[in-house]
Amino acid sequence: MKKGKLVTFEGGDGAGKSTQLKLLKDYLEKEKIEFIFTREPGGTEVSEKIRKILKSKENMICAECETLLYAAARAELVNEIILPALNEGKTVICDRFIDSSLAYQGRARGLGEEAVLKANELALKGLKPDLTFFLDIEPDVSFKRKGGADGDDRLENEGETFHRKIYECYINLAEQEKERIYKLNATQKPEKIHEEIIQTLKERKIID
Amino acid sequence: MKKGKLVTFEGGDGAGKSTQLKLLKDYLEKEKIEFIFTREPGGTEVSEKIRKILKSKENMICAECETLLYAAARAELVNEIILPALNEGKTVICDRFIDSSLAYQGRARGLGEEAVLKANELALKGLKPDLTFFLDIEPDVSFKRKGGADGDDRLENEGETFHRKIYECYINLAEQEKERIYKLNATQKPEKIHEEIIQTLKERKIID
Repeated sequence: MKKGKLVTFEGGDGAGKSTQLKLLKDYLEKEKIEFIFTREPGGTEVSEKIRKILKSKENMICAECETLLYAAARAELVNEIILPALNEGKTVICDRFIDSSLAYQGRARGLGEEAVLKANELALKGLKPDLTFFLDIEPDVSFKRKGGADGDDRLENEGETFHRKIYECYINLAEQEKERIYKLNATQKPEKIHEEIIQTLKERKIID
Repeated sequence: MKKGKLVTFEGGDGAGKSTQLKLLKDYLEKEKIEFIFTREPGGTEVSEKIRKILKSKENMICAECETLLYAAARAELVNEIILPALNEGKTVICDRFIDSSLAYQGRARGLGEEAVLKANELALKGLKPDLTFFLDIEPDVSFKRKGGADGDDRLENEGETFHRKIYECYINLAEQEKERIYKLNATQKPEKIHEEIIQTLKERKIID
């Protein structure tokens, strides 16, 4: 059986990931295309417990611990959900993946992308997304559009410089991996972006 | 100010760590020697939350996630407790540390010591114990002495082969790092082992 493909969605907070993921799910369901949808951190019972620790505002977590908790949640997701699904030939759509760790902890928290990638080797087991959609929008624009940070989310509450660094890291990653990372102009209308996503998935032969 | 020293205690389940740590704490308090005592996984608010996930029997956790959760808890402990205490010149006594990860996840879970050490680089920040006491006792002997595994502990419930591998890894580590890892014959009477610990701490000038 042909191995399935892993498609990830990346971008800063308020870039419009949720809207695009919803549109994509609706499309795939309508077209009866078999897929698995999951999110990071989370997606398994243990990963959701880790997610709770990561998201709670009361928790003061050092950057190193934060990175390793994301990696731990990722390890479960890769072993329990992603790899089995890919082996069954299914398309896996994941809301955030390794690039988020590189941008948020590697760049914005200042640990360095290389150190963060190293900490993730156990979790990734050599797995790389086949295609990554990066919703490209300047962080000040997206934050205004979103109506500010979600007050209950520990990471969204970081300042402007933090989100600027994340954006720059994504831009650098997209330059380094032009083939894997597909940049979407996220200032466009959602329906327009959605069309471009479907077209790209077809061109890459991820869906028919 | 002189930097403090990090002393760790290692050994399989039932090797007598708790007894020795209790005797050592009592001694240090009696002698009015300033020290900090902590344990892994745990020791900080976030690390104790991680500990709960790791210890709970209901959680099915893959070896990679397990390793990264221990590393995450360690990162917090190192940043919040151990490094600040060492910088204040305090002696830090830690119940388990990196060697436990090498033995339990690296060897017994089969991930390999090198991969586990790599996953821990972010957590350790170059920190290494100054002295490690390894309570050396054959696992079948210690388990009999302990009256079997603690039914509520996920890791203690692993089989005989698992605990044999842990023991062998400790033995190998002790051979590789003769200076750092001090082997204690843990079949001796607790008071006798305690005396050897105090004598060694004095010889190494960790306590006066």
